[in-house]
Amino acid sequence: MSRLVMKFGGTSVGDVERIRRVARIVAHEKKPGRGLAVVVSAMSGETDRLVALAREAGGEHSNRPAIGGPGFDDEYDVVVASGEQVTTGLLALALRQMGAPARSWQNWQIPIRSDSAHAKARLEAFAADTLGPAIDAGEIAIIPGFQAVTAQGRITTLGRGGSDTSAVAAAAALGAERCDIYTDVDGVYTTDPRITQKARRLERISYEEMLEMASLGAKVLQTRSVELAMAKRVKVRVLSSFIEPGQPNPGTIVCDEDEIVEKQVVSGVAYSRDEAKVTLLGVEDHPGIAAEIFGRLAEANINVDMIVQSEARQEGRQNLVFTCPDREAPRAVETLRAARDKIGYEDLHVRRDVAKVSVIGIGMKSQVGVARTMFSALAAKGINIEVIATSEIKISVLVDAQYTELAVRALHTAYGLDAA
Amino acid sequence: MSRLVMKFGGTSVGDVERIRRVARIVAHEKKPGRGLAVVVSAMSGETDRLVALAREAGGEHSNRPAIGGPGFDDEYDVVVASGEQVTTGLLALALRQMGAPARSWQNWQIPIRSDSAHAKARLEAFAADTLGPAIDAGEIAIIPGFQAVTAQGRITTLGRGGSDTSAVAAAAALGAERCDIYTDVDGVYTTDPRITQKARRLERISYEEMLEMASLGAKVLQTRSVELAMAKRVKVRVLSSFIEPGQPNPGTIVCDEDEIVEKQVVSGVAYSRDEAKVTLLGVEDHPGIAAEIFGRLAEANINVDMIVQSEARQEGRQNLVFTCPDREAPRAVETLRAARDKIGYEDLHVRRDVAKVSVIGIGMKSQVGVARTMFSALAAKGINIEVIATSEIKISVLVDAQYTELAVRALHTAYGLDAA
Repeated sequence: MSRLVMKFGGTSVGDVERIRRVARIVAHEKKPGRGLAVVVSAMSGETDRLVALAREAGGEHSNRPAIGGPGFDDEYDVVVASGEQVTTGLLALALRQMGAPARSWQNWQIPIRSDSAHAKARLEAFAADTLGPAIDAGEIAIIPGFQAVTAQGRITTLGRGGSDTSAVAAAAALGAERCDIYTDVDGVYTTDPRITQKARRLERISYEEMLEMASLGAKVLQTRSVELAMAKRVKVRVLSSFIEPGQPNPGTIVCDEDEIVEKQVVSGVAYSRDEAKVTLLGVEDHPGIAAEIFGRLAEANINVDMIVQSEARQEGRQNLVFTCPDREAPRAVETLRAARDKIGYEDLHVRRDVAKVSVIGIGMKSQVGVARTMFSALAAKGINIEVIATSEIKISVLVDAQYTELAVRALHTAYGLDAA
Repeated sequence: MSRLVMKFGGTSVGDVERIRRVARIVAHEKKPGRGLAVVVSAMSGETDRLVALAREAGGEHSNRPAIGGPGFDDEYDVVVASGEQVTTGLLALALRQMGAPARSWQNWQIPIRSDSAHAKARLEAFAADTLGPAIDAGEIAIIPGFQAVTAQGRITTLGRGGSDTSAVAAAAALGAERCDIYTDVDGVYTTDPRITQKARRLERISYEEMLEMASLGAKVLQTRSVELAMAKRVKVRVLSSFIEPGQPNPGTIVCDEDEIVEKQVVSGVAYSRDEAKVTLLGVEDHPGIAAEIFGRLAEANINVDMIVQSEARQEGRQNLVFTCPDREAPRAVETLRAARDKIGYEDLHVRRDVAKVSVIGIGMKSQVGVARTMFSALAAKGINIEVIATSEIKISVLVDAQYTELAVRALHTAYGLDAA
């Protein structure tokens, strides 16, 4: 007996016609000796409609900045979670009409447990003791993604994109051979195909690479779902929900590094335009100053990314550069200005027309000269590098936003990723 | 400590603005020492939308004539029940925004148990052991009407109008002082105010009278909810949800006959236009013939109402007249024609332009001459009576449909019901 988990997002179940196609895909994967569990999102647009209703009814009460924070409204989740319930019933109906045995399982029927951080709850346990035997007996289980129930029996939601995480959690609990994430793209690409037609679909990618890709703006899989897949060693496949069953649809396998034989030095080029660069000039150079600055930014809920520290012209002073998401830049500036006397700095600059371009690859670990290739390729196009940050499997540079596409294409070619 | 159950239908919670008004009404009823439970329907239009989606997805599978019959789809209920869940969350949010403590209770959280006749399930148990103390502690409970959960933990719906029944069941389980049904009319009237401006709101009406009113087409309360109220002796009040809290809104109390001091001979005049009259001429007169005919009609799911039997001109033959809902008339004719040889009759006529007009009153039990007043009043207007049927507290006549309003007004006057 083997088990398979399949997941379909909001666009894939956007109307009844699409739900029928999903039913055909699911029925095609149903084979003797294989148990199937299918995780579904709300029909596209439905979650937005429900969120708007909840905000209208609750006013400020459900519109706090700290969504999911303590005291955030549990009733918001009651309203929003109804969207996936509808899809589970509709898909079960569509499968039955095709003669395939199926039933929906609501979060409290399984149960899928989470903590009680409403609107951004974290999954804690996914029970497979009833569900597992049920799918082994041949009945396809349809499960709502994005939601769970607390130990006290209250409904929670996991936050946007949480359905991927639900699917990976289901696959882990069921000991599934694989978790197939059906989406509106046919796999993970070496870079954004909208930027270069030479982008290629990857056959395989490691969890670590996928994590960097996900967090760097390649929005194929939700970061938390990749983390969970890595922790639980769940093999994930990303593939298209718009290809009819029976047609070729290999997708991209996200798996352990050990399962990838040909390790690429660079597997992909990612970019993010939601970046801002903040420069603090002439910061007093004394122990604890960095902790002071970044502590304050953390308290203001600002996600600081790259950090560079350098000597200032004046002795006993240094310059400090960091990046953060562009939308958080005004708050960062406000926070630092308010604390100017405490911190002690001479001047503060912000540049918001910057972009981060990154090359990612597990082969980098055992390869020298990777950074040099990057710098040369960018220099050859006359692109100036503002900030550099590196990790074991990634090199990121901050560049002027107008060079984003040029930089991505240059790097894609330089690392031999271009399609033949 | 007292307890009160309030119920608001689909029109009363049709949009967020209306849900806010409902919240104001609920908050106004919240008093120290009084526990409140509020039963809500889906926002108007929402159930229809969900039913249409389920039918589109399930095709024939969820579109069987025998809705709720054996094997009817349990997933249909999963889809449809989501509508009330949304309203419970929205009303809880609106109440909290006004500073009133409130929370939603889903059917499986209470639980509300029913049998497993999906799409027209019958309530079996309403648990008050957790809910009761919770409302006594001051938190307003918001409960979805129209739905329940089976002993196996599957979601069911009770069929259209089932929210009234949910509310009465809640009131019975909680031992509530009263069940207030807020609707789009301000009470139960002596007759349809659209037919005569002289119609008056009744202060009180007995369960028995209300049952006859409900089943005769005065669509204020669902029949099953009145049956349940009568069985459990729950005092029900029907009142308007469109009157702002604090304004006079006495409504109509539906209660035990013993609680009504001034028993009217006739409390109301009801009518129904959804009627057809079927005549079988020259039916062979032998034992078991009526059982044969009405057995076949019952099998075809036809609701036969009035029945009159009379001698035919030819010896050993009789004529048989019955009424049924107009929409079922074609099926009745089809059924009888198919069995013509088995039954043995000479001819079959159908009249579909007929209406049933009834006078109802518990005072009738101890009063003579009630029928004579009815017949005289109709004769005075030249209205011919086609069929007569009587019960202990009701007299019904079938008349030509064009005289419906005239008959209703004549009877309203004849029994002294006209407003001064």
